[in-house]
Amino acid sequence: MDETEKLLLQVKDTSEIMLDLAYSSLIFSDREIADEVLLLADYVKELNSQLEEIVIERVSRDKDLNRAITYIRLSRAMEDIADSAEKIADVVLRDIKVHPVLAESILESGTSIAREVIAPGSVLAGTRLRETSLATDTGWFVIVVKRGQKWIIGPDGEAVLEPGDTIFARGPLESRGHLCRLCRGRTQQVQFVPDPSGEPDLRC
Amino acid sequence: MDETEKLLLQVKDTSEIMLDLAYSSLIFSDREIADEVLLLADYVKELNSQLEEIVIERVSRDKDLNRAITYIRLSRAMEDIADSAEKIADVVLRDIKVHPVLAESILESGTSIAREVIAPGSVLAGTRLRETSLATDTGWFVIVVKRGQKWIIGPDGEAVLEPGDTIFARGPLESRGHLCRLCRGRTQQVQFVPDPSGEPDLRC
Repeated sequence: MDETEKLLLQVKDTSEIMLDLAYSSLIFSDREIADEVLLLADYVKELNSQLEEIVIERVSRDKDLNRAITYIRLSRAMEDIADSAEKIADVVLRDIKVHPVLAESILESGTSIAREVIAPGSVLAGTRLRETSLATDTGWFVIVVKRGQKWIIGPDGEAVLEPGDTIFARGPLESRGHLCRLCRGRTQQVQFVPDPSGEPDLRC
Repeated sequence: MDETEKLLLQVKDTSEIMLDLAYSSLIFSDREIADEVLLLADYVKELNSQLEEIVIERVSRDKDLNRAITYIRLSRAMEDIADSAEKIADVVLRDIKVHPVLAESILESGTSIAREVIAPGSVLAGTRLRETSLATDTGWFVIVVKRGQKWIIGPDGEAVLEPGDTIFARGPLESRGHLCRLCRGRTQQVQFVPDPSGEPDLRC
Protein backbone atom coordinates (compact mmCIF):
# COMPACT_ATOMS: atom_id res chain seq x y z
CA MET A 1 0.00 0.00 0.00
CA ASP A 2 1.56 3.36 -0.94
CA GLU A 3 1.31 6.65 0.91
CA THR A 4 -1.71 7.89 -1.09
CA GLU A 5 -3.70 4.78 -0.30
CA LYS A 6 -2.76 4.93 3.36
CA LEU A 7 -3.93 8.55 3.56
CA LEU A 8 -7.17 7.84 1.71
CA LEU A 9 -7.86 4.97 4.07
CA GLN A 10 -7.22 7.19 7.08
CA VAL A 11 -9.66 9.77 5.71
CA LYS A 12 -12.27 7.04 5.20
CA ASP A 13 -11.85 5.55 8.67
CA THR A 14 -11.86 8.95 10.37
CA SER A 15 -14.93 10.26 8.57
CA GLU A 16 -16.85 7.07 9.39
CA ILE A 17 -15.88 7.25 13.05
CA MET A 18 -16.90 10.92 13.06
CA LEU A 19 -20.41 9.88 12.04
CA ASP A 20 -20.62 7.36 14.88
CA LEU A 21 -19.32 9.98 17.31
CA ALA A 22 -21.71 12.63 16.01
CA TYR A 23 -24.68 10.32 16.61
CA SER A 24 -23.24 9.42 20.03
CA SER A 25 -23.04 13.09 20.98
CA LEU A 26 -26.66 13.50 19.85
CA ILE A 27 -27.93 10.49 21.79
CA PHE A 28 -26.07 11.27 25.02
CA SER A 29 -26.23 15.11 24.61
CA ASP A 30 -22.47 14.96 25.13
CA ARG A 31 -20.70 18.23 24.24
CA GLU A 32 -17.28 16.70 24.80
CA ILE A 33 -17.79 14.14 22.01
CA ALA A 34 -19.24 16.86 19.82
CA ASP A 35 -16.05 18.90 20.36
CA GLU A 36 -14.02 15.84 19.43
CA VAL A 37 -15.93 15.58 16.14
CA LEU A 38 -14.94 19.16 15.30
CA LEU A 39 -11.27 18.41 16.02
CA LEU A 40 -11.44 15.33 13.80
CA ALA A 41 -12.96 17.44 11.03
CA ASP A 42 -9.81 19.59 11.06
CA TYR A 43 -7.71 16.41 10.99
CA VAL A 44 -9.61 15.14 7.92
CA LYS A 45 -9.07 18.44 6.12
CA GLU A 46 -5.36 18.25 6.94
CA LEU A 47 -5.10 14.65 5.68
CA ASN A 48 -6.93 15.60 2.50
CA SER A 49 -4.58 18.49 1.75
CA GLN A 50 -1.60 16.17 2.18
CA LEU A 51 -3.23 13.62 -0.07
CA GLU A 52 -4.03 16.11 -2.83
CA GLU A 53 -0.48 17.43 -2.77
CA ILE A 54 0.97 13.95 -3.22
CA VAL A 55 -1.55 13.04 -5.93
CA ILE A 56 -0.86 16.19 -7.94
CA GLU A 57 2.88 15.76 -7.57
CA ARG A 58 2.62 12.21 -8.90
CA VAL A 59 0.44 13.00 -11.91
CA SER A 60 3.39 14.53 -13.76
CA ARG A 61 5.54 11.50 -12.93
CA ASP A 62 3.15 8.57 -13.44
CA LYS A 63 0.98 10.13 -16.21
CA ASP A 64 -1.90 8.21 -14.56
CA LEU A 65 -4.55 10.90 -14.64
CA ASN A 66 -7.49 8.56 -14.08
CA ARG A 67 -6.10 7.26 -10.87
CA ALA A 68 -5.40 10.79 -9.65
CA ILE A 69 -8.98 11.87 -10.45
CA THR A 70 -10.38 8.83 -8.63
CA TYR A 71 -8.36 9.55 -5.52
CA ILE A 72 -9.30 13.21 -5.43
CA ARG A 73 -12.99 12.45 -6.02
CA LEU A 74 -13.00 9.85 -3.27
CA SER A 75 -11.17 12.03 -0.78
CA ARG A 76 -13.58 14.90 -1.45
CA ALA A 77 -16.62 12.64 -0.94
CA MET A 78 -15.14 11.47 2.36
CA GLU A 79 -14.47 15.05 3.45
CA ASP A 80 -18.16 15.77 2.76
CA ILE A 81 -19.07 12.91 5.10
CA ALA A 82 -16.84 14.46 7.74
CA ASP A 83 -18.55 17.83 7.17
CA SER A 84 -21.96 16.23 7.67
CA ALA A 85 -20.81 14.65 10.92
CA GLU A 86 -19.66 18.11 11.98
CA LYS A 87 -23.13 19.53 11.25
CA ILE A 88 -24.76 16.82 13.35
CA ALA A 89 -22.37 17.49 16.24
CA ASP A 90 -23.07 21.20 15.84
CA VAL A 91 -26.70 20.58 16.83
CA VAL A 92 -25.38 19.42 20.20
CA LEU A 93 -22.92 22.30 20.56
CA ARG A 94 -25.60 24.89 19.85
CA ASP A 95 -27.53 23.45 22.77
CA ILE A 96 -30.58 22.85 20.63
CA LYS A 97 -32.27 20.17 22.69
CA VAL A 98 -32.96 16.98 20.80
CA HIS A 99 -36.30 15.53 21.78
CA PRO A 100 -35.70 12.46 24.01
CA VAL A 101 -37.97 10.37 21.80
CA LEU A 102 -35.70 11.10 18.83
CA ALA A 103 -32.53 10.27 20.77
CA GLU A 104 -34.12 7.04 21.93
CA SER A 105 -35.22 6.09 18.47
CA ILE A 106 -31.78 6.73 16.99
CA LEU A 107 -30.49 4.46 19.76
CA GLU A 108 -32.95 1.72 18.89
CA SER A 109 -32.58 1.69 15.13
CA GLY A 110 -30.83 -1.44 13.85
CA THR A 111 -27.48 -1.01 15.48
CA SER A 112 -27.12 0.70 18.78
CA ILE A 113 -24.43 2.89 20.34
CA ALA A 114 -23.34 2.37 23.93
CA ARG A 115 -21.20 4.36 26.35
CA GLU A 116 -19.62 2.38 29.20
CA VAL A 117 -16.86 2.78 31.76
CA ILE A 118 -14.44 -0.17 32.12
CA ALA A 119 -14.47 -1.39 35.74
CA PRO A 120 -11.24 -2.69 37.36
CA GLY A 121 -12.81 -6.16 37.58
CA SER A 122 -13.87 -6.24 33.92
CA VAL A 123 -12.56 -9.09 31.80
CA LEU A 124 -12.02 -6.47 29.08
CA ALA A 125 -9.43 -4.59 31.18
CA GLY A 126 -5.76 -5.34 30.57
CA THR A 127 -6.25 -7.59 27.56
CA ARG A 128 -5.69 -6.78 23.89
CA LEU A 129 -9.03 -6.21 22.13
CA ARG A 130 -8.20 -8.96 19.63
CA GLU A 131 -7.71 -11.49 22.43
CA THR A 132 -11.03 -10.63 24.08
CA SER A 133 -12.86 -11.43 20.77
CA LEU A 134 -15.40 -8.81 21.80
CA ALA A 135 -16.47 -8.03 18.22
CA THR A 136 -16.99 -11.63 17.10
CA ASP A 137 -18.42 -12.90 20.37
CA THR A 138 -20.90 -10.09 21.03
CA GLY A 139 -21.17 -8.06 17.79
CA TRP A 140 -19.90 -4.95 19.62
CA PHE A 141 -17.11 -2.84 18.08
CA VAL A 142 -15.27 -0.28 20.18
CA ILE A 143 -15.31 2.90 18.08
CA VAL A 144 -13.48 5.18 20.47
CA VAL A 145 -11.79 5.06 23.88
CA LYS A 146 -11.57 8.05 26.16
CA ARG A 147 -8.70 7.83 28.64
CA GLY A 148 -8.50 10.98 30.74
CA GLN A 149 -7.83 13.77 28.26
CA LYS A 150 -6.69 11.34 25.58
CA TRP A 151 -8.90 9.91 22.82
CA ILE A 152 -8.08 6.69 21.02
CA ILE A 153 -10.02 6.81 17.78
CA GLY A 154 -10.90 3.49 16.13
CA PRO A 155 -8.67 1.30 18.32
CA ASP A 156 -7.28 -1.74 16.51
CA GLY A 157 -6.98 -5.30 17.79
CA GLU A 158 -3.73 -4.47 19.59
CA ALA A 159 -5.31 -1.80 21.80
CA VAL A 160 -5.59 -2.62 25.51
CA LEU A 161 -8.46 -1.17 27.55
CA GLU A 162 -7.63 0.15 31.02
CA PRO A 163 -9.84 0.38 34.10
CA GLY A 164 -11.52 3.79 34.09
CA ASP A 165 -11.53 4.07 30.28
CA THR A 166 -14.79 5.27 28.81
CA ILE A 167 -15.62 3.38 25.66
CA PHE A 168 -18.11 4.16 22.92
CA ALA A 169 -19.16 1.05 21.06
CA ARG A 170 -21.49 0.17 18.22
CA GLY A 171 -23.34 -3.12 18.09
CA PRO A 172 -26.61 -5.05 18.13
CA LEU A 173 -29.32 -4.05 20.61
CA GLU A 174 -29.93 -7.73 21.39
CA SER A 175 -26.68 -8.01 23.39
CA ARG A 176 -26.66 -4.49 24.90
CA GLY A 177 -27.12 -5.76 28.45
CA HIS A 178 -24.35 -8.30 28.02
CA LEU A 179 -21.89 -5.59 26.93
CA CYS A 180 -22.84 -3.57 30.01
CA ARG A 181 -22.21 -6.55 32.33
CA LEU A 182 -18.86 -7.24 30.65
CA CYS A 183 -17.67 -3.65 31.10
CA ARG A 184 -18.84 -3.49 34.71
CA GLY A 185 -17.27 -6.85 35.58
CA ARG A 186 -20.60 -8.54 36.32
CA THR A 187 -19.81 -11.40 33.99
CA GLN A 188 -16.46 -12.84 32.95
CA GLN A 189 -17.65 -14.76 29.90
CA VAL A 190 -17.31 -12.65 26.73
CA GLN A 191 -19.40 -15.05 24.65
CA PHE A 192 -23.01 -13.85 24.43
CA VAL A 193 -25.69 -16.52 24.82
CA PRO A 194 -28.96 -15.17 23.38
CA ASP A 195 -32.23 -15.71 25.23
CA PRO A 196 -34.07 -18.68 23.64
CA SER A 197 -37.21 -16.50 23.39
CA GLY A 198 -35.35 -14.19 20.98
CA GLU A 199 -35.97 -11.26 23.34
CA PRO A 200 -33.15 -8.66 23.34
CA ASP A 201 -30.95 -8.69 26.45
CA LEU A 202 -31.18 -5.11 27.73
CA ARG A 203 -30.71 -5.32 31.50
CA CYS A 204 -27.25 -4.88 33.00
CA MET B 1 -42.51 8.08 18.05
CA ASP B 2 -44.32 10.56 15.82
CA GLU B 3 -44.20 10.80 12.04
CA THR B 4 -41.36 13.33 11.96
CA GLU B 5 -39.12 11.15 14.10
CA LYS B 6 -39.92 8.07 12.04
CA LEU B 7 -39.00 9.92 8.84
CA LEU B 8 -35.79 11.32 10.31
CA LEU B 9 -34.82 7.85 11.44
CA GLN B 10 -35.48 6.45 7.98
CA VAL B 11 -33.28 9.15 6.45
CA LYS B 12 -30.52 8.28 8.92
CA ASP B 13 -30.71 4.54 8.33
CA THR B 14 -30.87 4.92 4.56
CA SER B 15 -27.95 7.33 4.31
CA GLU B 16 -25.81 5.07 6.48
CA ILE B 17 -26.64 2.02 4.40
CA MET B 18 -25.88 4.04 1.26
CA LEU B 19 -22.35 4.58 2.56
CA ASP B 20 -21.86 0.86 3.13
CA LEU B 21 -23.25 0.12 -0.33
CA ALA B 22 -21.10 2.79 -1.96
CA TYR B 23 -17.96 1.25 -0.45
CA SER B 24 -19.19 -2.20 -1.48
CA SER B 25 -19.62 -1.06 -5.08
CA LEU B 26 -16.09 0.36 -4.97
CA ILE B 27 -14.54 -2.80 -3.52
CA PHE B 28 -16.33 -5.21 -5.86
CA SER B 29 -16.44 -2.82 -8.89
CA ASP B 30 -20.15 -3.59 -8.86
CA ARG B 31 -22.20 -1.23 -11.08
CA GLU B 32 -25.48 -2.73 -9.92
CA ILE B 33 -24.90 -1.74 -6.31
CA ALA B 34 -23.71 1.67 -7.48
CA ASP B 35 -27.02 2.09 -9.34
CA GLU B 36 -28.87 1.11 -6.19
CA VAL B 37 -27.04 3.86 -4.28
CA LEU B 38 -28.31 6.41 -6.81
CA LEU B 39 -31.90 5.17 -6.42
CA LEU B 40 -31.59 5.40 -2.64
CA ALA B 41 -30.32 8.97 -2.99
CA ASP B 42 -33.61 9.89 -4.69
CA TYR B 43 -35.48 8.10 -1.90
CA VAL B 44 -33.62 10.13 0.75
CA LYS B 45 -34.44 13.38 -1.05
CA GLU B 46 -38.12 12.35 -1.19
CA LEU B 47 -38.17 11.47 2.53
CA ASN B 48 -36.52 14.78 3.37
CA SER B 49 -39.08 16.79 1.42
CA GLN B 50 -41.88 14.99 3.26
CA LEU B 51 -40.16 15.64 6.55
CA GLU B 52 -39.64 19.34 5.89
CA GLU B 53 -43.25 19.76 4.86
CA ILE B 54 -44.49 18.19 8.10
CA VAL B 55 -42.02 20.14 10.22
CA ILE B 56 -42.99 23.48 8.68
CA GLU B 57 -46.70 22.69 8.95
CA ARG B 58 -46.23 21.94 12.65
CA VAL B 59 -44.23 25.02 13.53
CA SER B 60 -47.32 27.22 13.33
CA ARG B 61 -49.25 24.76 15.48
CA ASP B 62 -46.71 23.79 18.17
CA LYS B 63 -44.73 27.08 18.22
CA ASP B 64 -41.70 24.86 18.89
CA LEU B 65 -39.24 26.55 16.58
CA ASN B 66 -36.11 25.04 18.17
CA ARG B 67 -37.31 21.53 17.58
CA ALA B 68 -38.17 22.34 13.97
CA ILE B 69 -34.72 23.83 13.37
CA THR B 70 -33.06 20.78 14.91
CA TYR B 71 -34.99 18.40 12.69
CA ILE B 72 -34.30 20.34 9.53
CA ARG B 73 -30.59 20.69 10.35
CA LEU B 74 -30.29 16.98 11.08
CA SER B 75 -32.16 15.92 7.97
CA ARG B 76 -29.97 18.19 5.81
CA ALA B 77 -26.79 16.75 7.35
CA MET B 78 -28.05 13.24 6.61
CA GLU B 79 -28.93 14.19 3.05
CA ASP B 80 -25.33 15.40 2.67
CA ILE B 81 -24.14 11.97 3.78
CA ALA B 82 -26.37 10.41 1.14
CA ASP B 83 -24.92 12.80 -1.46
CA SER B 84 -21.39 11.76 -0.51
CA ALA B 85 -22.30 8.10 -0.89
CA GLU B 86 -23.66 8.98 -4.34
CA LYS B 87 -20.33 10.60 -5.26
CA ILE B 88 -18.43 7.48 -4.16
CA ALA B 89 -20.75 5.24 -6.20
CA ASP B 90 -20.33 7.61 -9.13
CA VAL B 91 -16.63 6.69 -9.29
CA VAL B 92 -17.75 3.13 -10.09
CA LEU B 93 -20.38 4.21 -12.61
CA ARG B 94 -17.91 6.38 -14.52
CA ASP B 95 -15.79 3.27 -14.94
CA ILE B 96 -12.80 4.93 -13.39
CA LYS B 97 -10.87 1.88 -12.30
CA VAL B 98 -10.02 1.82 -8.65
CA HIS B 99 -6.57 0.44 -8.10
CA PRO B 100 -6.86 -3.12 -6.70
CA VAL B 101 -4.54 -2.20 -3.85
CA LEU B 102 -6.93 0.53 -2.79
CA ALA B 103 -9.98 -1.75 -2.98
CA GLU B 104 -8.12 -4.34 -0.95
CA SER B 105 -7.04 -1.86 1.66
CA ILE B 106 -10.59 -0.50 2.07
CA LEU B 107 -11.63 -4.11 2.55
CA GLU B 108 -9.00 -4.66 5.21
CA SER B 109 -9.49 -1.54 7.26
CA GLY B 110 -11.02 -2.27 10.67
CA THR B 111 -14.37 -3.63 9.56
CA SER B 112 -14.73 -5.50 6.34
CA ILE B 113 -17.52 -5.83 3.78
CA ALA B 114 -18.44 -9.21 2.31
CA ARG B 115 -20.62 -10.33 -0.58
CA GLU B 116 -21.93 -13.89 -0.38
CA VAL B 117 -24.64 -16.03 -1.99
CA ILE B 118 -26.79 -18.10 0.39
CA ALA B 119 -26.52 -21.80 -0.55
CA PRO B 120 -29.58 -24.08 -0.19
CA GLY B 121 -27.73 -26.04 2.52
CA SER B 122 -26.80 -22.93 4.52
CA VAL B 123 -27.96 -22.79 8.12
CA LEU B 124 -28.81 -19.13 7.44
CA ALA B 125 -31.47 -20.07 4.83
CA GLY B 126 -35.08 -20.23 5.97
CA THR B 127 -34.53 -18.88 9.48
CA ARG B 128 -35.28 -15.41 10.80
CA LEU B 129 -32.07 -13.38 11.13
CA ARG B 130 -32.79 -12.81 14.81
CA GLU B 131 -32.96 -16.57 15.44
CA THR B 132 -29.67 -17.26 13.68
CA SER B 133 -27.90 -14.76 16.05
CA LEU B 134 -25.53 -14.04 13.17
CA ALA B 135 -24.67 -10.53 14.42
CA THR B 136 -23.92 -11.50 18.02
CA ASP B 137 -22.25 -14.84 17.24
CA THR B 138 -19.98 -13.67 14.42
CA GLY B 139 -20.00 -9.86 14.49
CA TRP B 140 -21.43 -9.79 10.93
CA PHE B 141 -24.44 -7.58 10.13
CA VAL B 142 -26.39 -8.10 6.94
CA ILE B 143 -26.69 -4.62 5.42
CA VAL B 144 -28.59 -5.51 2.27
CA VAL B 145 -30.14 -8.55 0.61
CA LYS B 146 -30.52 -8.88 -3.16
CA ARG B 147 -33.26 -11.31 -4.17
CA GLY B 148 -33.62 -11.39 -7.95
CA GLN B 149 -34.62 -7.85 -8.88
CA LYS B 150 -35.66 -7.00 -5.34
CA TRP B 151 -33.43 -5.27 -2.78
CA ILE B 152 -34.07 -5.55 0.94
CA ILE B 153 -32.25 -2.63 2.52
CA GLY B 154 -31.19 -2.96 6.15
CA PRO B 155 -33.16 -6.16 6.90
CA ASP B 156 -34.40 -6.38 10.49
CA GLY B 157 -34.35 -9.40 12.80
CA GLU B 158 -37.60 -10.71 11.29
CA ALA B 159 -36.13 -11.00 7.78
CA VAL B 160 -35.67 -14.53 6.43
CA LEU B 161 -32.83 -15.25 3.99
CA GLU B 162 -33.63 -17.51 1.02
CA PRO B 163 -31.31 -19.79 -0.94
CA GLY B 164 -29.93 -17.83 -3.87
CA ASP B 165 -30.09 -14.49 -2.04
CA THR B 166 -26.97 -12.36 -2.39
CA ILE B 167 -26.13 -10.68 0.88
CA PHE B 168 -23.80 -7.80 1.61
CA ALA B 169 -22.59 -7.82 5.17
CA ARG B 170 -20.30 -5.76 7.34
CA GLY B 171 -18.20 -7.27 10.08
CA PRO B 172 -14.80 -8.11 11.52
CA LEU B 173 -12.10 -9.46 9.22
CA GLU B 174 -11.15 -12.05 11.85
CA SER B 175 -14.29 -14.11 11.16
CA ARG B 176 -14.53 -13.48 7.37
CA GLY B 177 -13.83 -17.12 6.48
CA HIS B 178 -16.41 -18.34 8.98
CA LEU B 179 -19.11 -16.13 7.41
CA CYS B 180 -18.20 -17.56 4.00
CA ARG B 181 -18.52 -21.15 5.26
CA LEU B 182 -21.87 -20.37 6.91
CA CYS B 183 -23.31 -18.89 3.70
CA ARG B 184 -22.02 -21.76 1.56
CA GLY B 185 -23.30 -24.41 3.98
CA ARG B 186 -19.83 -25.68 4.85
CA THR B 187 -20.46 -25.31 8.55
CA GLN B 188 -23.74 -25.46 10.46
CA GLN B 189 -22.51 -23.87 13.66
CA VAL B 190 -23.15 -20.11 13.64
CA GLN B 191 -20.96 -19.53 16.68
CA PHE B 192 -17.47 -18.40 15.66
CA VAL B 193 -14.57 -19.96 17.57
CA PRO B 194 -11.47 -17.77 17.07
CA ASP B 195 -8.11 -19.37 16.40
CA PRO B 196 -6.11 -19.47 19.66
CA SER B 197 -3.14 -17.89 17.82
CA GLY B 198 -5.27 -14.76 17.27
CA GLU B 199 -4.80 -15.10 13.49
CA PRO B 200 -7.81 -13.93 11.44
CA ASP B 201 -9.88 -16.71 9.86
CA LEU B 202 -9.87 -15.85 6.15
CA ARG B 203 -10.17 -19.17 4.30
CA CYS B 204 -13.59 -20.44 3.31
